[in-house]
Amino acid sequence: MTTLTDCLQNLVIANRILAHEGVVDAFGHVSMRHPDNPERYLLSHSRAPELITEDDLIEFTLDGEAFDLRDRIPYGERMIHGAIYEARAEVQAVIHNHSYELIPFGSTGVPLRPMTHTYSVIGAQIDTWDIRDKFGETDHLVATMEQGRDLAHCLGDRPVALMKRHGCVVAGRNLKEAVMTAVYLQTNARIQLQAMQIGTPDFLTPVEVEKSTACLFSPLGLDRAWEYWCFRAGYGSQ
Amino acid sequence: MTTLTDCLQNLVIANRILAHEGVVDAFGHVSMRHPDNPERYLLSHSRAPELITEDDLIEFTLDGEAFDLRDRIPYGERMIHGAIYEARAEVQAVIHNHSYELIPFGSTGVPLRPMTHTYSVIGAQIDTWDIRDKFGETDHLVATMEQGRDLAHCLGDRPVALMKRHGCVVAGRNLKEAVMTAVYLQTNARIQLQAMQIGTPDFLTPVEVEKSTACLFSPLGLDRAWEYWCFRAGYGSQ
Amino acid sequence: MTTLTDCLQNLVIANRILAHEGVVDAFGHVSMRHPDNPERYLLSHSRAPELITEDDLIEFTLDGEAFDLRDRIPYGERMIHGAIYEARAEVQAVIHNHSYELIPFGSTGVPLRPMTHTYSVIGAQIDTWDIRDKFGETDHLVATMEQGRDLAHCLGDRPVALMKRHGCVVAGRNLKEAVMTAVYLQTNARIQLQAMQIGTPDFLTPVEVEKSTACLFSPLGLDRAWEYWCFRAGYGSQ
Amino acid sequence: MTTLTDCLQNLVIANRILAHEGVVDAFGHVSMRHPDNPERYLLSHSRAPELITEDDLIEFTLDGEAFDLRDRIPYGERMIHGAIYEARAEVQAVIHNHSYELIPFGSTGVPLRPMTHTYSVIGAQIDTWDIRDKFGETDHLVATMEQGRDLAHCLGDRPVALMKRHGCVVAGRNLKEAVMTAVYLQTNARIQLQAMQIGTPDFLTPVEVEKSTACLFSPLGLDRAWEYWCFRAGYGSQ
Repeated sequence: MTTLTDCLQNLVIANRILAHEGVVDAFGHVSMRHPDNPERYLLSHSRAPELITEDDLIEFTLDGEAFDLRDRIPYGERMIHGAIYEARAEVQAVIHNHSYELIPFGSTGVPLRPMTHTYSVIGAQIDTWDIRDKFGETDHLVATMEQGRDLAHCLGDRPVALMKRHGCVVAGRNLKEAVMTAVYLQTNARIQLQAMQIGTPDFLTPVEVEKSTACLFSPLGLDRAWEYWCFRAGYGSQ
Repeated sequence: MTTLTDCLQNLVIANRILAHEGVVDAFGHVSMRHPDNPERYLLSHSRAPELITEDDLIEFTLDGEAFDLRDRIPYGERMIHGAIYEARAEVQAVIHNHSYELIPFGSTGVPLRPMTHTYSVIGAQIDTWDIRDKFGETDHLVATMEQGRDLAHCLGDRPVALMKRHGCVVAGRNLKEAVMTAVYLQTNARIQLQAMQIGTPDFLTPVEVEKSTACLFSPLGLDRAWEYWCFRAGYGSQ
Repeated sequence: MTTLTDCLQNLVIANRILAHEGVVDAFGHVSMRHPDNPERYLLSHSRAPELITEDDLIEFTLDGEAFDLRDRIPYGERMIHGAIYEARAEVQAVIHNHSYELIPFGSTGVPLRPMTHTYSVIGAQIDTWDIRDKFGETDHLVATMEQGRDLAHCLGDRPVALMKRHGCVVAGRNLKEAVMTAVYLQTNARIQLQAMQIGTPDFLTPVEVEKSTACLFSPLGLDRAWEYWCFRAGYGSQ
Repeated sequence: MTTLTDCLQNLVIANRILAHEGVVDAFGHVSMRHPDNPERYLLSHSRAPELITEDDLIEFTLDGEAFDLRDRIPYGERMIHGAIYEARAEVQAVIHNHSYELIPFGSTGVPLRPMTHTYSVIGAQIDTWDIRDKFGETDHLVATMEQGRDLAHCLGDRPVALMKRHGCVVAGRNLKEAVMTAVYLQTNARIQLQAMQIGTPDFLTPVEVEKSTACLFSPLGLDRAWEYWCFRAGYGSQ
């Protein structure tokens, strides 16, 4: 059984991994659903992921109300997390990031699709949410639950949605799956952009995506990758 | 109130951040207006930003005359700084750099525009200054106040101007804003070039630029990013 | 004469080099034929190459049966190695990887060809194997000897074959040659993709490939490069 | 006056700088003309530049005969150096490298031209030498003085020549100028390739190249850059 202590430790590691792999920079965040209370989630206050420690992690209600915030500022876009946990009972981890490699796809409308079996975890279909459609000209921040729910609706039951002129959201059944999906989403984008410069890429079929994802999310795939990312982020083998 | 000691410390940090993020290499420089005398600015003598310490920082008149220069050589292009401080009373920090990502835009005449809300700080419009227009075939250095003023005129009241076959200038209301603008200008250029390889990018509107910039330049955005860049440049959290 | 001890030490080094040069990440593997028994090969259990030590190396039959596996999981794709050793008596080392630079070529069908004499070691011709052709929609893993033999047949007597939507295999007459081939295959792909963005690349002829490879695989080339890669991977000069 | 001791120390530093900046990898080399005997030059035996120490440096006649070689192998392409020193009395340093960024230009025939004043040091015109023209299908190595002289003839009185399917040569009036030229040649290639992906680059005129080079090769430019590259290569400030 996953304890709160395990969750907090792994959430710090996930922050560091995402920073080390270049998925997040000063911005972007990762949360976990509270292991003892599905109506709450764990997320840092407003701080760059690379610097986060367990002391920075705070408990939030799905509506984004913080416990024990003290004088710290919460992330302005925490509503992304609550809205997805609210809509998807099976989701245990959510990542929001602005990975540089993704922006060209949301910006141009070119669909992002899995280039290899390794990147199958991004899913066979990725939709793009545009805050302009319902909310007009804003600062692009998902600052209200209404906006968060609109984004969650676009995400549907898929692992990834792009956010136009902004970044993406990733939802996972557990923290490791969410981290793998976010890292490989970035790598897939980089490779697909390169392939498009010399020809027409060939993608996995939906059946191949399903079969490959099962393999990547098995211990053979997921534990091997997690150990590797931990090592690179400075944690030795875990 | 900002003291001279704070300014000097932060100016060293800004030099290191810009070097670490790849915005400057052997060349490029960053200055601050003197906190006690708006007719003077603080800038290193001619040295690569990555190596600068407080001892390297010198006081200059807006016309580029140095105090306590001793046997050191000033930057040949310090006139860029004085001319912008002269023209813009609200500007407290100026950066000049040759970021590799920017050159393709000045060189080809392709307009650089904000790709996401994070990069809104570069402004809705960026003009390009060409030293050839008024000064003919030169070594491209902004070596006189006349040249500096011509560049400042092109900059107008905006945060950024490109310099054709050369680089850019960035002006900020404070040092942290100038650093964020210079770093994100580089990232935006990289991402926009990639997007243009696969399609037609979609940019922020002027209204979105204004709203997003307000958020990025609030403590929620600026302090989080500054802490992150300090950490990466070796300063721990500040 | 190569002893088992030497083999195991060098195989660990090869894993680290391939990780450091970015040829492998969490996935990918390198094996050697057993120096005392050509019907066996040495390969790690399922672990990221960057973390592998001598304790992780296991002996396998060509059919993929492990000795002394204990509670460890073998690589799901070890059949790649056995099938190539079975088909090619002169091959002493095999590498399988998903290098990011290679995917665009397999994906688009653009032929990868040697751009310079240094990269001649990749061979004058590189074919692409597609698991779909004989095995339909799978998880793309080479999980059976039948699949491994089909891949080995595509490889033929050449040093490299691409694997569509997946990566590549590299076969060498010794470990150092295999490592050089895998590293330069990646570099050649990167350079060829860039060249194709500005014009039509000019490649080596088959005669030039043969002459250049002889030079690269001589001590003048191979020992110099091996010493360099060892140093970069943290081994000092070997 | 430059002493032999200074030369040897600086030649080691130049090797490390070129390795650290990615201009050379396992291959590539840099030499200096002997300060006391213009008919000789100093060059390492066959070793990757990143690993070279003073003990590796050897004296050669312009024809490539080594003094005190002992059991070490000389670079197979040392004739490049002797042939250029023979043809150009003013040249005091020569670099040969395979920088990845350059290959696309030699390969496609696209002319490489200075994009900014900083890169003016590469010269207003860069020709490309093809060993095939006079020597047919070879291993592409410049292995004889006849081949070296043919390359030197293509170089003429310019600082740079590309070598098709191979790399480049750089000649400098002193070691620092040669290093700056080699580093900026690589950066210019990277930037020009990017610019060509979005439009038509605009280059410096020959007059601008001459004026800018004078500035870059003055202490204001050259010493600042050398101190920076030394620092990055681990030498602190020199």
